[in-house]
Amino acid sequence: MEQDVLTKIDAYIERTQDYWLEQLARLCAQPSVSAQNYGIAECADLVATMLQEQGFRAEVMPSNGYPVVYGEGNGRSDKTLLFYLHYDVQPPEPLELWDSPPFEMTRKGDTFYARGISDDKGHIIARLAALAAVKEALGELPCNVKFVIEGEEEVGSPNMPAFVEDHQQKLAADACIWEFGGVDYDGNPAQSLGMRGICYVELSVQTAVKDAHSGLGGSIFPNAAWRLVWALNTLKDDNEQILIPGFYDDVVAPSARDLELLQLLPDHAPNLLETYKLKGFLGGVEGGLDLKQQAVFTPTCTICGLNSGYQGVGTKTVLPAKAMAKVDFRLVPNQRPDDIVAKLRAHLDTHGFSDVTVTLLGGGRPAKVDPDHPFVRLANETATAVYGKTPLVEPIVGGSGPNYPFIHVLGLPVVSAGIGYPDSQVHAPNENMRLDYFLKGIQHTARIIEGFARMEA
Amino acid sequence: MEQDVLTKIDAYIERTQDYWLEQLARLCAQPSVSAQNYGIAECADLVATMLQEQGFRAEVMPSNGYPVVYGEGNGRSDKTLLFYLHYDVQPPEPLELWDSPPFEMTRKGDTFYARGISDDKGHIIARLAALAAVKEALGELPCNVKFVIEGEEEVGSPNMPAFVEDHQQKLAADACIWEFGGVDYDGNPAQSLGMRGICYVELSVQTAVKDAHSGLGGSIFPNAAWRLVWALNTLKDDNEQILIPGFYDDVVAPSARDLELLQLLPDHAPNLLETYKLKGFLGGVEGGLDLKQQAVFTPTCTICGLNSGYQGVGTKTVLPAKAMAKVDFRLVPNQRPDDIVAKLRAHLDTHGFSDVTVTLLGGGRPAKVDPDHPFVRLANETATAVYGKTPLVEPIVGGSGPNYPFIHVLGLPVVSAGIGYPDSQVHAPNENMRLDYFLKGIQHTARIIEGFARMEA
Repeated sequence: MEQDVLTKIDAYIERTQDYWLEQLARLCAQPSVSAQNYGIAECADLVATMLQEQGFRAEVMPSNGYPVVYGEGNGRSDKTLLFYLHYDVQPPEPLELWDSPPFEMTRKGDTFYARGISDDKGHIIARLAALAAVKEALGELPCNVKFVIEGEEEVGSPNMPAFVEDHQQKLAADACIWEFGGVDYDGNPAQSLGMRGICYVELSVQTAVKDAHSGLGGSIFPNAAWRLVWALNTLKDDNEQILIPGFYDDVVAPSARDLELLQLLPDHAPNLLETYKLKGFLGGVEGGLDLKQQAVFTPTCTICGLNSGYQGVGTKTVLPAKAMAKVDFRLVPNQRPDDIVAKLRAHLDTHGFSDVTVTLLGGGRPAKVDPDHPFVRLANETATAVYGKTPLVEPIVGGSGPNYPFIHVLGLPVVSAGIGYPDSQVHAPNENMRLDYFLKGIQHTARIIEGFARMEA
Repeated sequence: MEQDVLTKIDAYIERTQDYWLEQLARLCAQPSVSAQNYGIAECADLVATMLQEQGFRAEVMPSNGYPVVYGEGNGRSDKTLLFYLHYDVQPPEPLELWDSPPFEMTRKGDTFYARGISDDKGHIIARLAALAAVKEALGELPCNVKFVIEGEEEVGSPNMPAFVEDHQQKLAADACIWEFGGVDYDGNPAQSLGMRGICYVELSVQTAVKDAHSGLGGSIFPNAAWRLVWALNTLKDDNEQILIPGFYDDVVAPSARDLELLQLLPDHAPNLLETYKLKGFLGGVEGGLDLKQQAVFTPTCTICGLNSGYQGVGTKTVLPAKAMAKVDFRLVPNQRPDDIVAKLRAHLDTHGFSDVTVTLLGGGRPAKVDPDHPFVRLANETATAVYGKTPLVEPIVGGSGPNYPFIHVLGLPVVSAGIGYPDSQVHAPNENMRLDYFLKGIQHTARIIEGFARMEA
């Protein structure tokens, strides 16, 4: 009986794939760049419409920022599965590095290109396809489902924690499937159990009302670019030690179980070195457990952008009045973004950089799920069935997302499942998705839904 | 007789001012941004045409970079006066800060706005107007004249030294009027006797072939922006001490005569603080001789621009593969740009920054003229007559230009005379010229020409 259901599920996915690719093209054609407020409202409406077309109740709910698309559908059991997803995408810039228009899904062989196709629009479509497949196979949904599809994930989900706090009753559920998932370089399914937190700030300095001729002011005027460089230099030394007092105070070292899980993961060092053409990794680590641990269990201070003065070709002899840096701190348990911003502010003041303004652009707390929860085991067993390989369980990943309120406020076990693969170029030009991983991501999601309904409470 | 000549000169200038303003509008309408190679060839042709229209022989000569407009005309005596000027302008960016189109001369009251109107196109027209006035008053030119009008001054005149070396016979003269001049905040005429040198470099770093997600690479990938910040930080400390070993080795302290001249200059501190809305000057100096000396007799290391990663609104969680800084060093006698670049390279290597590429974008040596030369006295006496005030003699100014080959290769006394004033916004948006200073600059230039022809050799 169970095998019969799975056969029906897979047959449905195989039969309807062109329809789901069309839906994906439709969704990718709608820009939704949260960093630039480009197409956000239109995309929220489109996602709600697409949920309704699949038979779900859907509404565009206000938040303290961009709207959240909420959806729900009833099923046979009284258990509820929550899908967290996001409809916003990263900015497409630099446009000149794209080989096809970012907001027009383009097929080359069995690879599909578009901004957001992997992160996260392909996952939205994969969830809808999986639900349709299970419904077709069983005649009805086996459990209740809820959707929370937000529009600010790519700008740090600043309003998701409050949204979850404010709607705990409405969002009540028994388990959650996260917005991403997929395979590693060797095609092994990956299971992410947690994410680092983030604290994304803009540092800005203004030293005059206007730029000056560098010959006039060079010896006597404060220079905004120099102020910024000196301030940044106090944040981290070239041994990657973050110098903000108390920055590491709340860092919890990985547990023995965390390290055991890391040890089982493959070594991605050769692939990373080749893909990015790196001369080596920070700190001289070459790979193995050292690299795995450093990659996800150490907090970061990354300069994401620098801007000041003249940046065109050739020379302009100008002394800049303004300078700006974008800096992101990735946080590990139990660091908190509000605490880090306060420590950063105090540190700059102590070092004489009260003229450097700190603006918090996004923050979220780190969070992890118990690797031995039954729902995690279900996600892993179904992955083994679909991919033919034992999933690689990551105790925490380097990226960030608003999983903290789902894990610690709603109290849900959260698992990942999806369509991603390492060369999908998320956040970069030529973001893409492979057809085979798209179909497997749908199959895996469908099996979790089907298994969840039968899972012992 | 002499007074009669001067009366005729002034009457001519008064009578023909609309014609010269039309010529200036025509010249400003032709973009000529050397940093962007925008309109350069067209502007060189236009300048040659305009010289020919005034009765001079003119040719567009090749150099190792952009062409040089050379012109000449014969006069009564066998003495020759050389005019050094430039037809290129600074980039107009940031365009949004202009109140009128940068390449369309716009009049508001008796102020005229355009990119290059003061630096240096207004000076080109002022020289032509002065020559026409003297010729009209005397019936012929009283001396031979030559023009060297280059197209690379705003990018550091990289090819002017070689051009002068290569054409010493053709450029032979007895004295030179420089490309700028004018008045200070109080309307006092200014006489500049020298200029600092310049060494303008681009520092660039590339750590990978493409940007990475900051969540993926933050803990383990080298970050180009951080490499650049750390490298820059080794160049100068926040007490403005330049840390490159040997940087100060060839610095010659100002002479007693230099300091005497500086002492006679007015204190611009209040005007600078007000114009740029500065909180104070570097090093805590408040004004007076300390500020004057620091402004021009100390070498600089100025960050003119910074560029890396994401610089738009909001957040993008990217780890940049590339970063770039534009840095200009202003040099005092007897520093040399080639020597400074070599010391910079060695310093970066010593500090482990061999990954930082240094590209020399422009260089020129500092040079000064004897304050007691008869031609300098002539320029000062005629300034007193025109402006009704004793000129303020600056032993050296903060800016740079290729005066070294004119002073030390051609062996000429070089003086400044012109149309500038402190709020003319050179190198910045809304560059402008005042009608009264334009006319006085023409009168002063005409008097130097007339007096030079009668000057004892």
